[in-house]
Amino acid sequence: MKKIGLIGFGCVGQGLYLLLNSTGYEKAQIKSIAVKSKDKPRIAPNEILRYSADELIDDPEIDIIIEAIDDADAAFDIARKTIVAGKDFITANKKMVATHLEELTALAQLNNVVFRYESAVCGAIPIVQTIDNYFAYEPILSLRGIFNGTSNYILSKIFNEKLEYRVALKQAQDLGFAETDPTADVGGYDPKYKLIILALHAFGVYLANEDVLNFGIDSLNKEDIDFARERNLKIKLVPSIYQIDGKVFGYVLPEFVSEKDNLYQVENEFNGVNIEAGFAGAQFLYGRGAGSFPTASAVASDLDHVVNKRGYFYQKKIKPSTVADDANILIEVYTRFTNEAIQKVLAFENVTEGLFTEDFRQLTGYISLKQLKNVAHILKREKVSIIATGRRKLIGQKTTEKILEQEKRRA
Amino acid sequence: MKKIGLIGFGCVGQGLYLLLNSTGYEKAQIKSIAVKSKDKPRIAPNEILRYSADELIDDPEIDIIIEAIDDADAAFDIARKTIVAGKDFITANKKMVATHLEELTALAQLNNVVFRYESAVCGAIPIVQTIDNYFAYEPILSLRGIFNGTSNYILSKIFNEKLEYRVALKQAQDLGFAETDPTADVGGYDPKYKLIILALHAFGVYLANEDVLNFGIDSLNKEDIDFARERNLKIKLVPSIYQIDGKVFGYVLPEFVSEKDNLYQVENEFNGVNIEAGFAGAQFLYGRGAGSFPTASAVASDLDHVVNKRGYFYQKKIKPSTVADDANILIEVYTRFTNEAIQKVLAFENVTEGLFTEDFRQLTGYISLKQLKNVAHILKREKVSIIATGRRKLIGQKTTEKILEQEKRRA
Repeated sequence: MKKIGLIGFGCVGQGLYLLLNSTGYEKAQIKSIAVKSKDKPRIAPNEILRYSADELIDDPEIDIIIEAIDDADAAFDIARKTIVAGKDFITANKKMVATHLEELTALAQLNNVVFRYESAVCGAIPIVQTIDNYFAYEPILSLRGIFNGTSNYILSKIFNEKLEYRVALKQAQDLGFAETDPTADVGGYDPKYKLIILALHAFGVYLANEDVLNFGIDSLNKEDIDFARERNLKIKLVPSIYQIDGKVFGYVLPEFVSEKDNLYQVENEFNGVNIEAGFAGAQFLYGRGAGSFPTASAVASDLDHVVNKRGYFYQKKIKPSTVADDANILIEVYTRFTNEAIQKVLAFENVTEGLFTEDFRQLTGYISLKQLKNVAHILKREKVSIIATGRRKLIGQKTTEKILEQEKRRA
Repeated sequence: MKKIGLIGFGCVGQGLYLLLNSTGYEKAQIKSIAVKSKDKPRIAPNEILRYSADELIDDPEIDIIIEAIDDADAAFDIARKTIVAGKDFITANKKMVATHLEELTALAQLNNVVFRYESAVCGAIPIVQTIDNYFAYEPILSLRGIFNGTSNYILSKIFNEKLEYRVALKQAQDLGFAETDPTADVGGYDPKYKLIILALHAFGVYLANEDVLNFGIDSLNKEDIDFARERNLKIKLVPSIYQIDGKVFGYVLPEFVSEKDNLYQVENEFNGVNIEAGFAGAQFLYGRGAGSFPTASAVASDLDHVVNKRGYFYQKKIKPSTVADDANILIEVYTRFTNEAIQKVLAFENVTEGLFTEDFRQLTGYISLKQLKNVAHILKREKVSIIATGRRKLIGQKTTEKILEQEKRRA
């Protein structure tokens, strides 16, 4: 029987401990748990508690390290040491994995260890392994979804209970769904990490955090919500990545979502992923994106793969897609702002709909991804509402947009 | 490079041929294709066509047999010969797999060959492998879904376009979705085969075709549809399997489905599966359940597993659930009939709702699964409408129904 060193005993760690005890998993058992505080009461017996992660990594009896702490820097340190020590490694830390994906996958290969992170993307939804092995040989056309339960919970409260953003955020914080500093969730950073991880498995590309545009839901205001509601649309925070003619581009933007889209039904803390594949067509996976047991469930699934020495295949890395030139990507976005100088900053390629009043301007049109990235800091500072319509194109694209549109309608 | 013998070159076989050519799969290639007719024009070169399945099975150069023919008996013959010959085997034939599941899995183990059938259940949806390995160590509480695109297409037409059953069936037949004899689809046999396959992976149990109750949609009439519509419900043909207190029971019944259920959104030829797992909670997988490329996509995924000698794990077979005694299962069903003698036949344990007129009786209540099975042939002959409400219980159950109800509301 393999021996596990569990580092971190918060929500996920405790969930895993209870899950393994309750299911009577017979191929591996937790030998030691590294925790920070000596004073907290714990649900695990004192004998197996340790107060140093290194002690677990250095323990020759421990074969597998499962890391479930919050601090991404400390987690990266643990990851490197574990892999270099030749131990298999499972983590739930999306920020750490996304930020160091290239280094860690290379290091794992070099040291011949299994490195898995299913729970880092959409909790209990088996999206990493599905993309990695079920779609190993199938071209992916797009991946879009709701990858962040906190922001989705807030949007659900806004749309279904007509709460204001601030009230909904407060409620999410009171329930423990949102952090005191909610930026990672409501600013679209957390879903970006997940998008970066999926991009490797779906397209074989390593994207850097700073190269992927992310807007959040924190600039949306009542008028934007009303605009959506009048058109029978919802606004969701949608990380998406598209492949057109072998060129890949992705971003995280609030997006208008219609009833025909599976994401329309994803409410509260749930997550959902739309996949468009070349042969399989439209697929949708839905489940719990966070929480103690759902996350532990994904970790336990990784554990069984690790025990059997089954790593990810990274099949798409062999013939990776090319990352598109941002200047060639045009995204249609709805924008709303009060300072008219913003219109120049936006530099629309063409405007498809507009409303001018004395108080504000509301413009929908195509902007290049490059331009949006360049001026993102201004738009965020000025609290400009930015919502994608879901339409986008690659300049000079051969594949007709029609195919994707058809798939979308079907979905 | 491994060599494939493809038996059958219809919709699925051709889809696979095109898929492998187009994706440039480099680990295996089709050496020969066995077809029936010598006269049909084919999209594959003449040199690789053969006219006998045995020739492929006997070819020492062929490592893998992929069977994609319609005839379940002939397919079983091919399956046995292939496995006994020590070759890995992939099939898309749900009836054959469900009917001979115990024998074939035993035979494959004995001969140390990989035997996979992802495409046999819900086409492109990776449901077999997800249940088999992602949920290998997690207790499944229930699996319910829409596993048959033909009957779902007909129901969609009835509900969304207010077509009559006969008209919708005719339309499905004209479009090639439904066979001239549509019994397997509209009578609930096809989804039953798929349920039987999933029952093995989810609960470790082998169910016999004749032991699983199935009603179809062919007895539903306008009044039933109106009854559903007035309550803002849809009727879907739902195979479902539940585990309560370690006891498993399953059946295929038309079911009233509310807006809150993911299955409500599954329209036309699409399939969807709701999973309730002990730790992961509610999950939903959605995609194309049939069609040339979607089915070929699932076969191609199997192929890559086979090339790498990765079979299913059948983890749940080690500690299988017990099949519940039918007499202890109470299912709440809506019934509608004109012949009042039917009420005696139904033998309700208790009636929860009723409407009596001169022309018909419409009764909702709990009936034991055993009773329903015993009188199924009478109910079918008399064209009694049978629609499950989704409520059921195990007599003397310890697990409170509440847990499942909560999960359902959330889903």
